[in-house]
Amino acid sequence: MQRFILFLLLAGFCVPTLGQNANNDDAFFIRKIYDQALTEGRSYPWLEFLATRIGGRLAGSPQAAAAVEYTKQMLDTLHLDSVWLQPCMVPHWVRGDKEQVKIVSSRKMGDVDLRAFALGNSVGTSENGIVAEVVEVQSLDEVDKLGPQALTGKIVFYNRPMDPTQINTFNAYGGAVDQRGAGASRASKQGAIGVLVRSMTTRNDDIPHTGGMSYEAGVTPIPALAISTNDANLLSELLQEEAVRVFIKCNPQKYPDKLSYNVIGEIRGSEKPEEIILVGGHLDSWDVGQGAHDDGAGCVQSMDVLQIFKRLNYKPKRTIRCVLFMNEENGLAGGRAYAEISNKNKEFHLAAIESDRGGFTPRGFTAESQATDFEKKFKNMSNWLPLLEPYGLTLSLGGGGADIGPLRSQKGILIGLYPDSQRYFDYHHTAIDTFDAVNKRELELGAAGMTALVYLLDKYGTD
Amino acid sequence: MQRFILFLLLAGFCVPTLGQNANNDDAFFIRKIYDQALTEGRSYPWLEFLATRIGGRLAGSPQAAAAVEYTKQMLDTLHLDSVWLQPCMVPHWVRGDKEQVKIVSSRKMGDVDLRAFALGNSVGTSENGIVAEVVEVQSLDEVDKLGPQALTGKIVFYNRPMDPTQINTFNAYGGAVDQRGAGASRASKQGAIGVLVRSMTTRNDDIPHTGGMSYEAGVTPIPALAISTNDANLLSELLQEEAVRVFIKCNPQKYPDKLSYNVIGEIRGSEKPEEIILVGGHLDSWDVGQGAHDDGAGCVQSMDVLQIFKRLNYKPKRTIRCVLFMNEENGLAGGRAYAEISNKNKEFHLAAIESDRGGFTPRGFTAESQATDFEKKFKNMSNWLPLLEPYGLTLSLGGGGADIGPLRSQKGILIGLYPDSQRYFDYHHTAIDTFDAVNKRELELGAAGMTALVYLLDKYGTD
Repeated sequence: MQRFILFLLLAGFCVPTLGQNANNDDAFFIRKIYDQALTEGRSYPWLEFLATRIGGRLAGSPQAAAAVEYTKQMLDTLHLDSVWLQPCMVPHWVRGDKEQVKIVSSRKMGDVDLRAFALGNSVGTSENGIVAEVVEVQSLDEVDKLGPQALTGKIVFYNRPMDPTQINTFNAYGGAVDQRGAGASRASKQGAIGVLVRSMTTRNDDIPHTGGMSYEAGVTPIPALAISTNDANLLSELLQEEAVRVFIKCNPQKYPDKLSYNVIGEIRGSEKPEEIILVGGHLDSWDVGQGAHDDGAGCVQSMDVLQIFKRLNYKPKRTIRCVLFMNEENGLAGGRAYAEISNKNKEFHLAAIESDRGGFTPRGFTAESQATDFEKKFKNMSNWLPLLEPYGLTLSLGGGGADIGPLRSQKGILIGLYPDSQRYFDYHHTAIDTFDAVNKRELELGAAGMTALVYLLDKYGTD
Repeated sequence: MQRFILFLLLAGFCVPTLGQNANNDDAFFIRKIYDQALTEGRSYPWLEFLATRIGGRLAGSPQAAAAVEYTKQMLDTLHLDSVWLQPCMVPHWVRGDKEQVKIVSSRKMGDVDLRAFALGNSVGTSENGIVAEVVEVQSLDEVDKLGPQALTGKIVFYNRPMDPTQINTFNAYGGAVDQRGAGASRASKQGAIGVLVRSMTTRNDDIPHTGGMSYEAGVTPIPALAISTNDANLLSELLQEEAVRVFIKCNPQKYPDKLSYNVIGEIRGSEKPEEIILVGGHLDSWDVGQGAHDDGAGCVQSMDVLQIFKRLNYKPKRTIRCVLFMNEENGLAGGRAYAEISNKNKEFHLAAIESDRGGFTPRGFTAESQATDFEKKFKNMSNWLPLLEPYGLTLSLGGGGADIGPLRSQKGILIGLYPDSQRYFDYHHTAIDTFDAVNKRELELGAAGMTALVYLLDKYGTD
């Protein structure tokens, strides 16, 4: 191996020298972090419980309450300086009976059941369901163009796929998800009575993907459901040949907001306790699967950061805080409440790292900030790259995460763990986002990478 | 996005400028390669057929013959300049009946069946099986030290695990696999009558992993089997408490060598046809699964390189040749025959790229060479990194691949596709190395990355 390193240098390979801030002690400690994570990490068994024993845990559900209790208990076992629950009021939406979506009396196919999930926050149909002709569109703008003449009394079918040529699948998601979030409002304004949306995935399969949507103030709320991509393809092909009528029946309900909690644990800093380094994910998930990748993974990784530091007997200079946010999926109440209270208490988050892109092999971190000297801070952090690159980690500009977003005004650094994105949208918001879809090593490497970055942030700050 | 790139520059991020050899046309063409691979790639449906319709295809088996026929037919559909079968004689080892491995009359546990596979090339037991006391060891050297007094008539149980703290799991494999390959010979020399080996994986599970082994000339061949890691842990724990006897029965057979084939297709170069750029994988696989990651993936990716070039109507300057090697797993007869014939024909392989590390998200390439000016060539190739990094690809020193190894003496560059390694040894040589363990996008990105590198090698050479 030595031979190879020598050769790398001979070959003129660009081996950046360590910045003044980093040294061999750091390389040694980061190696210990990885050893710990890969041999005595707790993220995997914690996730097993959260995903398989508790399961899907939409805000307001009994499972969400169980997840709060379970993760608090686990944090309590770590002998942290404090563990507490932070109250927040969350929306309480319940899916109700299994959705029915059916192509009705197609000349070619007869009746065909479509695999569907109501979108989160959607209203239901009447008890008898609705039946209407389907109009396929590719965009929100196309709905506006078609107008009420074409759409009144119809079901609008948004069928623009995620772009498979995007290398980062989150870009493909970003290019299609407006249909899910805003499609119902736009269609309702033109007189439509319901909306079907192609599931957000690049795969062609039978798995419907739920997800959040909302109604603009003043529009008539109409039912909105996602159908699987195979069913979307079938429906689209059929529409080439004949007018198609679809029956939809679902009865999700919105109940009054409920009290729930963010779960928080911290190791208090020995020198600068007022500078907080946050690690977190969101504890709630959609109800249809186990919420393993989204975002059980991010929660247990964040908990493991504290566990690893405690096992290594690391005494941080700054306060290291793990926050498991409630209600990211359909409201962000937890993230908002956390920032509000933090601001009220005049806290300062030097950095906040969120893991909410699945428990896959980490490829690095994305960072953003409203700090006026972010450029300089980012450059300082880039000096750590030689310590992170041996573990396959890079640092680039990009979003931090939804839950930590409300902390933006504190002008610290918001950081997102950036794992390999290829498989995420196979599982995202589905019934197959289950524990067995998570690889133990991939999950643990994410926890280790987060811990390594927190260590460097704690030791050197960002200035 | 433009804003981000600007900021990257402002932030002093190291954006290497393109070498003199590469330009925006290249970036554009590589983008087209990825678009093609991700929208009209054929690797995934080809793999589906190879893995699910043909299945495990050990050299000499009917399935191996079917794989030769199928891949040749598929290459024939691509309108290449030539497609041919290259004969080679391969070993013909057949597993026989389901192996029986059983802890016998443990005081604590009674009889316990262990999940096991005979290792490839292993001899069988007698018809009645063997029963003997088990001696656990951690290394080949320990066997030598224990000697015949301790081991005569015993079953040696090699139980040194793969090191989970290795970030690259191939390093962990390399650190443990001597037990599988050489364990039987070393134990036989000390009088042992059989060998059990802990399966080569970092996971604790019930899945036995087969794999190649060989007998040194002159030693008495004794049966050698792998047991699952859970069973290895159980056996080891039991051995702490009591003497343990194990029953082994298996009847693999070696038959006379059989005629088989490498499958080859090429697009002949327009300017320097005598300079060959090879892409390949191995067509044979172990018999116990579907050989999806190992190495169906590498085969269909290599075939897709040619398919993509044809679809893009690319006319290479150099000859681009896809080689699907036979018998990598238990003999390397295909790789050796290929190099021998190539040398006899005074061919020169400018570069050979093998994909044999699973169909996972590619992270780059490893390269080696016996060329005296490899250092310079490697530096030249490193100038292409700005074209490859947007796709997550790096270039580093390291092995090319087993099948292309015999080409080393031609002093071209031997290159291995280097995918994310975290999941590979979950599946390697097991019954769960199946088509559904392969992600379509990850597979396609590998094919695209290989095609991009071949394009650059073809256009610029290595000097």
